[in-house]
Amino acid sequence: MKIAIVGLGLIGGSLAKAIKKNTNHTCFAIDKNKQTILAATEQESIDGEIEVSDLKKCDVVIVCLYPEATVKFITENAGNFKTGGIVIDVCGVKGAIVTPCEKALSQVGVKFLGCHPMAGREFSGFEYAVDNLFDKASFIITKTENSDSEVVAKISDLALEIGFREAVVSTPEEHDKVIAFTSQLAHIVSSAYVKSPSLFNQAGFSAGSFKDLTRVAKLNEDMWTSLFMLNKKALSDEISCIIDRLCEYKNALDDENYEEMHSLLKDGRELKEKSIEQA
Amino acid sequence: MKIAIVGLGLIGGSLAKAIKKNTNHTCFAIDKNKQTILAATEQESIDGEIEVSDLKKCDVVIVCLYPEATVKFITENAGNFKTGGIVIDVCGVKGAIVTPCEKALSQVGVKFLGCHPMAGREFSGFEYAVDNLFDKASFIITKTENSDSEVVAKISDLALEIGFREAVVSTPEEHDKVIAFTSQLAHIVSSAYVKSPSLFNQAGFSAGSFKDLTRVAKLNEDMWTSLFMLNKKALSDEISCIIDRLCEYKNALDDENYEEMHSLLKDGRELKEKSIEQA
Repeated sequence: MKIAIVGLGLIGGSLAKAIKKNTNHTCFAIDKNKQTILAATEQESIDGEIEVSDLKKCDVVIVCLYPEATVKFITENAGNFKTGGIVIDVCGVKGAIVTPCEKALSQVGVKFLGCHPMAGREFSGFEYAVDNLFDKASFIITKTENSDSEVVAKISDLALEIGFREAVVSTPEEHDKVIAFTSQLAHIVSSAYVKSPSLFNQAGFSAGSFKDLTRVAKLNEDMWTSLFMLNKKALSDEISCIIDRLCEYKNALDDENYEEMHSLLKDGRELKEKSIEQA
Repeated sequence: MKIAIVGLGLIGGSLAKAIKKNTNHTCFAIDKNKQTILAATEQESIDGEIEVSDLKKCDVVIVCLYPEATVKFITENAGNFKTGGIVIDVCGVKGAIVTPCEKALSQVGVKFLGCHPMAGREFSGFEYAVDNLFDKASFIITKTENSDSEVVAKISDLALEIGFREAVVSTPEEHDKVIAFTSQLAHIVSSAYVKSPSLFNQAGFSAGSFKDLTRVAKLNEDMWTSLFMLNKKALSDEISCIIDRLCEYKNALDDENYEEMHSLLKDGRELKEKSIEQA
């Protein structure tokens, strides 16, 4: 197949490298930064640069831009994709992407699927792209009532070929609800965590737990602001939930209620253990 | 030197193994579980079992019990330690341990130092003890106005000999305030995190951030309940602080205030980056 990647950032760049390493597909790229194209070509991460007008020749186009830019690129270039071809995106929210993109592409006979490769790093850009970023990751495909099951199967196969551990089929609604909890809330909590006045006294007083809880505070605020705002309701509900839970621990402490604290911690441990078993 | 370890759990067992691996000191142990003593002897993690009455012959006694049991053991056995010898503990809180232990031991001419090896695992017990648990860890020593600086220097040297990355000298008050933030809050937040109704929908939707944020929810509730209750005020303040911060992110979301969200995330990223530089 001829694949095109639009946007050689961390995700687009890593996808290109993994496609070249693990598959026999041809992989072209579009990026506004000519240095990035040059580096990707020199490293043989891509088979070459193409123009927007060349997208017509590509069987699968993977748009790897920020959320707003993804919708803009796909809707504005609806006429530039191959009739009967497939366009997918890789954004961390799906409802806000899938609805406008599916609508624009269905009118021109192009298939759209909202996708989300579940991997990342605390760094952005092609210079951090690696060919094994997805080795242990899930590739989420969101299906709607308009999705073609052959297209879902084809993209699912491609994800496994690229090296993803598994392809998970979901819906945009389910995806956005669960991702608010597993990924977005983690970034909010980590960002809030570092804001204690105690932060700059911690040298020598930190073990693994502090590092784990604050790792993703080092995020890209341009991208994450968009992702959060496009999934406002679900994320707001998750933040409310953890605030309410934290109040329970605080009340147990303030009341010196050993039994209550013990039971709160025991419940948390058991839930964590159950969730590991089910994963 | 002759060293005795009281309590061969994860920390006591790992200390014994590291002492035998990295130093030439003799290392005896006391543990109420005879199977543990047998296993430790067979693995040559200790030079043998001793009785409480033998503690008189030991230059350094390291008490590795839970907080309440540590205070009980040290105060009840004040007369059993070597005159001029050193007794240290390894509890995760210091004020509540140091005050009673220092008082009991100063009356009988034994030196006490409250210590905290900053390492752990999500598992308890000698069977998880390893000789490299402390390789990248800090060893915190808390000094009071009664502490002897020669004793501090001796224990600091011992910690480095055992293999700790660094020995950090602090006070019980500073230790408890900072540890409330770097360690205790992490365990509370992780425990609260897993209590969302979304927990059991996350298979296939989780990347590293979820794993990191929830790893330490798998804690030992007996030990942590004690540690939290013995550091009530500082921990309660840290929980209040993160709740207030989380409300700011939630308000920005609910108000659809992009600028505010962007600025909250940018502040968090910059704080995290600065804290890495200072670590």
